[in-house]
Amino acid sequence: LAVDLVSGDRGVPSLLEGVLHARRTCLIPFTAHLCGRRQDIIDAFEARGSGHEEHDNLFIEDCPDSIEPGDTPSRAWKTRTHSPVIRCITLQKEGRVDASVSAGDTGILMGAAIFLLGRMEHVSRPALAAFLPTTSVRPVLLLDVGANIGCRAEQIVTFGRMGFNYFGRYFGDDCPKVALLNVGHEESKGSAVLSEAGQKLGRSCRGYCGFIEGGRVLSGDAQIVVCDGFVGNVLLKACESFHALTAQVLSGHKRLFNSLKKRMTILNAENYGAVPFLGVRGVVYKAHGSSSAMAFSHALAAAVTAVHHGLPITHDL
Amino acid sequence: LAVDLVSGDRGVPSLLEGVLHARRTCLIPFTAHLCGRRQDIIDAFEARGSGHEEHDNLFIEDCPDSIEPGDTPSRAWKTRTHSPVIRCITLQKEGRVDASVSAGDTGILMGAAIFLLGRMEHVSRPALAAFLPTTSVRPVLLLDVGANIGCRAEQIVTFGRMGFNYFGRYFGDDCPKVALLNVGHEESKGSAVLSEAGQKLGRSCRGYCGFIEGGRVLSGDAQIVVCDGFVGNVLLKACESFHALTAQVLSGHKRLFNSLKKRMTILNAENYGAVPFLGVRGVVYKAHGSSSAMAFSHALAAAVTAVHHGLPITHDL
Repeated sequence: LAVDLVSGDRGVPSLLEGVLHARRTCLIPFTAHLCGRRQDIIDAFEARGSGHEEHDNLFIEDCPDSIEPGDTPSRAWKTRTHSPVIRCITLQKEGRVDASVSAGDTGILMGAAIFLLGRMEHVSRPALAAFLPTTSVRPVLLLDVGANIGCRAEQIVTFGRMGFNYFGRYFGDDCPKVALLNVGHEESKGSAVLSEAGQKLGRSCRGYCGFIEGGRVLSGDAQIVVCDGFVGNVLLKACESFHALTAQVLSGHKRLFNSLKKRMTILNAENYGAVPFLGVRGVVYKAHGSSSAMAFSHALAAAVTAVHHGLPITHDL
Repeated sequence: LAVDLVSGDRGVPSLLEGVLHARRTCLIPFTAHLCGRRQDIIDAFEARGSGHEEHDNLFIEDCPDSIEPGDTPSRAWKTRTHSPVIRCITLQKEGRVDASVSAGDTGILMGAAIFLLGRMEHVSRPALAAFLPTTSVRPVLLLDVGANIGCRAEQIVTFGRMGFNYFGRYFGDDCPKVALLNVGHEESKGSAVLSEAGQKLGRSCRGYCGFIEGGRVLSGDAQIVVCDGFVGNVLLKACESFHALTAQVLSGHKRLFNSLKKRMTILNAENYGAVPFLGVRGVVYKAHGSSSAMAFSHALAAAVTAVHHGLPITHDL
């Protein structure tokens, strides 16, 4: 695993804590390449009273450079080769690691994945996909949740086909249902882009079952729900905050809240930790910018598990 | 009150039941003009063992025409003058009622309100506004929740200013905070439209406080959150369905679920019943298409209460 230890809001010590926690708890043992300034990482190890030499299969990759606010995703991979996020993806390109995890900027991470690892055939833009709980047994896979703002019809069609493949592999389902998020289920609803995307999905995606409204996303009617990255991002984050609201109301009722928590576990950012990019040739996980040590630990476990199961599918669409 | 008794999915008997329930329970007495086919309405009264003559201040407005699937919002008000929804707004224009309630098509209802009642000055497109619960004491007002798909910056700015006025009047708050929904709070995030809208809101709306992410909508950080009608619609409906998901998990724990229900009451379509159009010269409420008798009763009560409090503000922006 290549780990961007400088990304996110909480700093190196917190993310390092996450790495060490994941190494203790993840059922699948893994090697980690820690990308960041060498001295910062050594300091973080010392602050917790240990040296990194004490840990087998834990390597420091000194990355003295950093991504600056003005850097564009299309150039960062060329000009910031010594930044942690670009180093992660480069290690992956060189075949030294199987997956990368970063809590950094989505655009920079996706740009690096696209330009260094490459896209799958027929994928113009990769997407971020997240699982949400439903009132049925299986969760729903929502994509895109933030990698692409203002999608063309063709991109949305690709999301549907990638989601179909991913969910199918994940749950061994031969034909999961794919729905397109809209303000109504009637054909006349929504924008021209959605109308075109719906028609194209009908022709090119076996599982396509039409439009779905916001109120049915968590119903389990469809196993994959596709939408523009703006809408998906707002929806995902709102569900997370709804979870927090419910938690507040139920505070003091520990047992009940725990049963709710268990059910909603994938909605809690602390638990799901990270979401994969679909459509790039490699396993790249984007963790929450606000990831705590615990959330980051889950992010690493998710990436390790994905590699273990051969997910996300990286063969061509 | 003018009531479109034919709108929605459940038919005349159910909506009539809602009207009679509202008349029994609403603290403010009101007169209702029931718009629909006379015979259908008489039949519905008879089916429940009473005649409409037994009810004071309940009038049947015979509307033999109906809106057909091919009708456009811009023409329905001219060609379907004898349909229930157009009759409602016409009664309002003639000053015979103070407010209209319909569970029918949003576009047709908004078209009728715009063309017959007119827009407030400086409002190019009215918006639908809905209250959502927050982790703080006061709810958050979200708009637009579905009247406008694919908004220009200028429209979004108007939503902010209308929401500011509406919330301020509702809660007697001199300067509620207005935020713009985006995928991040940094200025560089989101589309060109959002960037432009943010800059214009900063200049023209006193309460504007910048971008807000989906995860903070229910936090109470901002009292008004503005967005494109597509995003708002998906978000509102998803919150409703999240409520259903929580209800399922908590089933069997009646007391707790009731406390949750009380807190989330405005999220339950059965309770909030309807959302007002802001920006038209008159009180027009859109009820859920799937409104039950109970939900419709709450919708009528909401409209009556709005008139009583002089809401929505119909003076110019």
